[in-house]
Amino acid sequence: MAATQETGVFTYRLDLAYEGTDFRGFARQPRVRTVQGELEKVLSVVLREDVLTTCAGRTDAGVHARRQVVSLTRSRRIDDEAAVARSLNRLLPPDVRVNRLSRAGEGWSARFSAEWRAYRYYVRTDPVSDPLGRRLVWHLGVPLDIDAMNRAAAFLVGTHDFASFCRAAEGRYSVREVREAQWRVEKAGHLIFEVLASSFCQQMVRSMVGWCAEVGRGRREASETPGVLAARSRQAAGPVAPPQGLVLWEVGYGEPEESRPGDE
Amino acid sequence: MAATQETGVFTYRLDLAYEGTDFRGFARQPRVRTVQGELEKVLSVVLREDVLTTCAGRTDAGVHARRQVVSLTRSRRIDDEAAVARSLNRLLPPDVRVNRLSRAGEGWSARFSAEWRAYRYYVRTDPVSDPLGRRLVWHLGVPLDIDAMNRAAAFLVGTHDFASFCRAAEGRYSVREVREAQWRVEKAGHLIFEVLASSFCQQMVRSMVGWCAEVGRGRREASETPGVLAARSRQAAGPVAPPQGLVLWEVGYGEPEESRPGDE
Repeated sequence: MAATQETGVFTYRLDLAYEGTDFRGFARQPRVRTVQGELEKVLSVVLREDVLTTCAGRTDAGVHARRQVVSLTRSRRIDDEAAVARSLNRLLPPDVRVNRLSRAGEGWSARFSAEWRAYRYYVRTDPVSDPLGRRLVWHLGVPLDIDAMNRAAAFLVGTHDFASFCRAAEGRYSVREVREAQWRVEKAGHLIFEVLASSFCQQMVRSMVGWCAEVGRGRREASETPGVLAARSRQAAGPVAPPQGLVLWEVGYGEPEESRPGDE
Repeated sequence: MAATQETGVFTYRLDLAYEGTDFRGFARQPRVRTVQGELEKVLSVVLREDVLTTCAGRTDAGVHARRQVVSLTRSRRIDDEAAVARSLNRLLPPDVRVNRLSRAGEGWSARFSAEWRAYRYYVRTDPVSDPLGRRLVWHLGVPLDIDAMNRAAAFLVGTHDFASFCRAAEGRYSVREVREAQWRVEKAGHLIFEVLASSFCQQMVRSMVGWCAEVGRGRREASETPGVLAARSRQAAGPVAPPQGLVLWEVGYGEPEESRPGDE
């Protein structure tokens, strides 16, 4: 236990989950409740020094995370990562939980080392909403043509300029590589959009879902999707889906296949 | 549409779902937020008369319902039940929803016509709680011996005096017929207790779960269960499980098998 005095630069990886309902997003902001704000406050208490964190995916207000990944560096080694994780959970509010704290290699970054991010978006089409699941779903409440939605989603796979699917920001680079994008029916009335990309620009998944929903309702045609991409204008893709249906599902760091966390 | 003037005694059945988190239980009480209180307030607005309701299962504070059933009688016929259900949902808070309003036979009662009630209780054994599911589960956070729990549950099936599993109440009749009671693993770390009985006394499911959890943790033996029943004392069964893991799952009115709502 005397190893505490070892000094240098020590990098750590934190895996966490949160329900976004009562947070104004992940990123620290003055005077509002954010995941990063709560996390750094508690980290500074447990580790007895100010800690700055970097995350793999800066989720917006109301968006949830099943597996968010965060990196932090310290000048001292942590002896017992599991004990620190337990201490963090004792102090954190119940809507955020640390699943693991582990040592990472020097220079490793939750953000820049990530090879891909996977999100899921939950939609319910039943006419009456479900009070028990309402915080984690977009209750659209109308029938959707899932085949048409999958035809639209297929146009989004590949490397494209997603300016039409990104929150407008002057001069932001909006080219992304979407590797997978598909809708599936979990059970009657329960739809899930699964999307995996190198990275996402802001509101990209919710814009894709909003567009697919327009197609699924028959207001627009799947075949219009290439034109929407080409327009490079947020207005072209129609309304953005609400945040509460979106979950940051997993982040990939090029681990060998067998060590990847399994699907649930 | 002139049929509105038809008078007499008209009985209706309301199927509803609610998340119990922010309710002080189902039953109307002065000055606190209850499901029945919210429902009757909205019914009186939509139907333009005071309405008293009777339910199939009076759930306690914090307990949820996937399918609660309520009966009410009126002196006038409702022309369009679906339209009334939609109006109710427009006025109800998001944590309670009417799934159906339908005409029932004269003398039918949600409570007295019910042949059985089915509840489910959700337990999580993972060491770290899940922020996304936390409102609908008892996060026990320790490994449980499900085989031992099922041996304990098997002793509870049948017609017994459940005084040891009922909230103490002087002179209350506590004999019940439990038809099914079993634990199953939904996926790793996710346990579900499924129980079906003619009816339940207060806190009966939570007491059964509390007892099974004691057995599952190895603090008590499944073989002690008959002795706990015989003791006819609430103290014999150990701690009561918390309300948030419990869901009123379904109520049976002796419909033919094929018309029963399917399992999800």
